[in-house]
Formats: sequence, C-alpha cells, structure tokens
Amino acid sequence: MVSNGQLTIAGLGPGDLDQITPAVLQALRAADAVVGYFPYVARAQALLAQSAPAGSRQPQWLASDNRVELERAQQALELAAQGQKVVVVSSGDPGVFAMASAVFEALERAQGAQAERWLALDVQVLPGVTAMLAAAARAGAPLGHDFCCINLSDNLKPWPVIARRVELAAEADFAMAFYNPRSHSRPEGFNRLLALLRAHCEPERLLVFARAVSTPEESLQVCSLAEAQPEMADMRTVVLVGNRLTRRVGRYTYTPRYYGAVDGKAP
Amino acid sequence: MVSNGQLTIAGLGPGDLDQITPAVLQALRAADAVVGYFPYVARAQALLAQSAPAGSRQPQWLASDNRVELERAQQALELAAQGQKVVVVSSGDPGVFAMASAVFEALERAQGAQAERWLALDVQVLPGVTAMLAAAARAGAPLGHDFCCINLSDNLKPWPVIARRVELAAEADFAMAFYNPRSHSRPEGFNRLLALLRAHCEPERLLVFARAVSTPEESLQVCSLAEAQPEMADMRTVVLVGNRLTRRVGRYTYTPRYYGAVDGKAP
Repeated sequence: MVSNGQLTIAGLGPGDLDQITPAVLQALRAADAVVGYFPYVARAQALLAQSAPAGSRQPQWLASDNRVELERAQQALELAAQGQKVVVVSSGDPGVFAMASAVFEALERAQGAQAERWLALDVQVLPGVTAMLAAAARAGAPLGHDFCCINLSDNLKPWPVIARRVELAAEADFAMAFYNPRSHSRPEGFNRLLALLRAHCEPERLLVFARAVSTPEESLQVCSLAEAQPEMADMRTVVLVGNRLTRRVGRYTYTPRYYGAVDGKAP
Repeated sequence: MVSNGQLTIAGLGPGDLDQITPAVLQALRAADAVVGYFPYVARAQALLAQSAPAGSRQPQWLASDNRVELERAQQALELAAQGQKVVVVSSGDPGVFAMASAVFEALERAQGAQAERWLALDVQVLPGVTAMLAAAARAGAPLGHDFCCINLSDNLKPWPVIARRVELAAEADFAMAFYNPRSHSRPEGFNRLLALLRAHCEPERLLVFARAVSTPEESLQVCSLAEAQPEMADMRTVVLVGNRLTRRVGRYTYTPRYYGAVDGKAP
C-alpha cells in the first residue's frame, strides 16, 4: 500500500534566504511538518514568514539538537508514513554531509512492517547550494579545477582514514574543501590537518577560510599555508585549499581551468 | 577610478527554473547585458519572462558558442568596465568547471590600461546548484561521504593527469563525480575511464548515470561497474561512482556517513 505521505529532504543553502531555491520554498509551503536541527528550522520559519501572507497555515515545527540525525530521520519517516507531507531541512545541500544519508540509513535499518511502510514512501531530495560552493564564490573560483571534499569530523571515521585521504588528494593535486574543520570536542583536529598539508604541499599554497558565508557573521581570510593558523577555523568555517596552480588576481583567488598543458608536468 | 559597472557571474542550476536562487534572478532583473553560451542565455530569458511583467525592460542578450569562454569573459569584463551591469550566466555553479575561472583568467591576462580598468571592477560570483548535486539528489545520496569531482574533458589537461587522479581517488576510496564524460570529439574518453575504474574498483561498485537532471530530457540509470556501458554517458550526463560502501535501499542509492568505524578497515 502506498501512503499519501511524502518525505522531502531539502537544502536551505549557506544561510542567506536569497540563496534558497524556489523548489525548496514550495516544499515548505506545502508541508504539514518541518523537521530539523534548531537553527535550520529557524531559517525555514524565517523564509516562510518572509514569503507567505501573515496568518497563513503553518506546518508543525519539529526542531531537535545536533547529533541526533538518525532519530530525526526516523521521526520524519514515521510522520510521512502516517500520511503527512514532511520536509527535513538541512543547511547547504542535503546530500553533502547532511540529512539525506541519515534518512536512507534509517530506511535501511528499518525492520518488518515498519520497513514496508517506510519503503512505500515517496522520498525526494531537493538540492541546495552547499557551503563549499558559497565559500568558493566569495573568494573567486578556487574550485575551478578538479577538487575533493572531505568532512574532518572524526565522529564519522577514524583519523587515519582522513589523513590518508588528504595525502592522496595532495598527490593528485586536487583542490580541497574541508567541512567541520574544528569543534569544541576535537580542537586538535585542524592542527593535525595543517601539519599534514605542510608535509605534502609547498608553503605558498593558498588557503581560504570562509566563515558563515552569506550570513551577517560572514568573514573571509585568504593566506598561504605558511601563514595559516589553527584559530582561523571554527565550527562554522569551510576551509578551501587550492591546488598548486591556484593563484591570486586582484582580490580574487582562483584555480585555472587548464592543467599540465600549461606547464607540461603531471601532478 | 572605480567604474560604476558591475560584473556578476551567476549559476543557473541544473536546468529547472525552480532550481535557480532568488539572488540570481535579482541580478538578471538588474542587468544591462547578459552574456553566455546559447542554451544558458535562453534559460535566463525564460526565467525573466516567467517572473517579470510583459513589456518589462530587457537586458541586451549576448549569446555565443561553446569553447569561446575566454573571449566571452573578455567581452563581459569590457562591457562592465564601460559602466554596464553585466551578468555572465553559467549552468550549474559558475565555480565548478564553468565561467568563473575563465573570467579570472581573462582578468589575469589583461595588460596595461585595460588591466587597470578591469581590476577596478566589482566582480561578484553567485553560486548555484551544480550538476553533481542535482544528480546525487535524484539518485538518493551517493555523495553523502567524502568525494571528489573530476572534469573528464581532456581539452583542459592531458589524459595521464586524469588517469592518475582517478587511481588516487580510488585508493582514497572517494566517491567520484565526473563531468563531461563523453563528447563527439573524444568518444573514447569514457571507455578509458571505465577500464581504469575496472582495474581499481570491485565489479559490484555502484555507478549513477544522470542525464539532463531536472529537464524534460532527464534520465537516471543506476548499475554496477560490471554492468556499465560507455553508451550510458553522453555530453549531458554526469556520472557518479560510489565508494566501496555505497549501496541501494529501495530505489535509492546512498553512501553512508560513517566509514571505517563501521567495518574497522582503512580504505
């Protein structure tokens, strides 16, 4: 039996309400319930308040804390299975270190009759502007050539896996985007990354520290690897590392489209 | 002297007009001139026609062919330096294998008085939903863990650079997103990629072929590496390759957030 319920996992972009797609706004307007981490639910509320006439029908707002992604995903699936139109909100893009994987993980773990009800749902993912793209846009075009994207949170994987990936990315000469570079629970994580980068990249390598891009707390710092300090990153920072051809022109930082043909060398 | 002109490099998202941010729409509404590749200028025209009252003031539409990115960038910079509000349109996100790097490259190449006038401009990049995120959203969440993004066009770099990056990405066990997998001028490129992947990944590895996502021509195919055929990719396809933990649940393909802790092994 197919339920009438629907589950949409929607990306709210980097922070500015003007960076949220109309597709996401439409999903929020049609929602019976909106589920997410406190600040993202607040952002969805601000968006609806800005765009809907006062007194419009409001969805049920179900905000929860960080680090309960799986429980939140299960709550959303269950509400949708009961026939509601549910929107799970994520910052940025829901498919990049955000709620989409958590929802599919919850779906996979479901058992018996619950699994049957949940698998009958129509689950839709609505993409958004992920943090690294917003950060890159503010800096210029540091991700304008092949790049990789690494979550530094070692809640999700052991540090040796992260370290090996950074070494291989440096060898491939990918530009790199790092999410969750630092948190209260692991202040040493970003120091370890800087040490690794210094072992594998030249001191002139350009780094972009982009904090809370497109919000009132936005700040942007560009410096060389030699100048980089661990304190430049916090929980709200995305760190971009250029490849060896990344350069500055005026106040912009960019990575050329061409590689190899330019200087004849493989990475 | 700072010119009154302004240059905005804007991302139009994957195709659907509902995936374009309000920030980009506002820039188009304020534009004196819109510069870009034919189909993207047409998309910007459709967006303005949909959202503006009939008879509204229209910008000058300056559409040009593919493979003239540098000339287009120079034209846009020059018009802005003459005092116009110019918007350069890209599909997806302008910073991912699109016009932003071309504009900064043109800025870097400028000489003398031209360089001075162009460097005085206010250049702004407005991000968008890049093709791999739209593709991933349609499939589920195949980029839900660390990943890399590689442009297969060997107009931009020699094949050995691409091949080495793929080998290192497989060793790092990154999920991978491939842009421009195949074109008329290099039909063999994608065959070479499949051969490489087969040499470095297990036959069960999941691939997503996402064509023209969010347009009426959209198609999505998910298969194992063993089942993949070169004909599944064309110019409008983004190919996503999962990491070794990527799996299916129901009709969705996703990559778990966790790694290593799950099975205790480094990549």
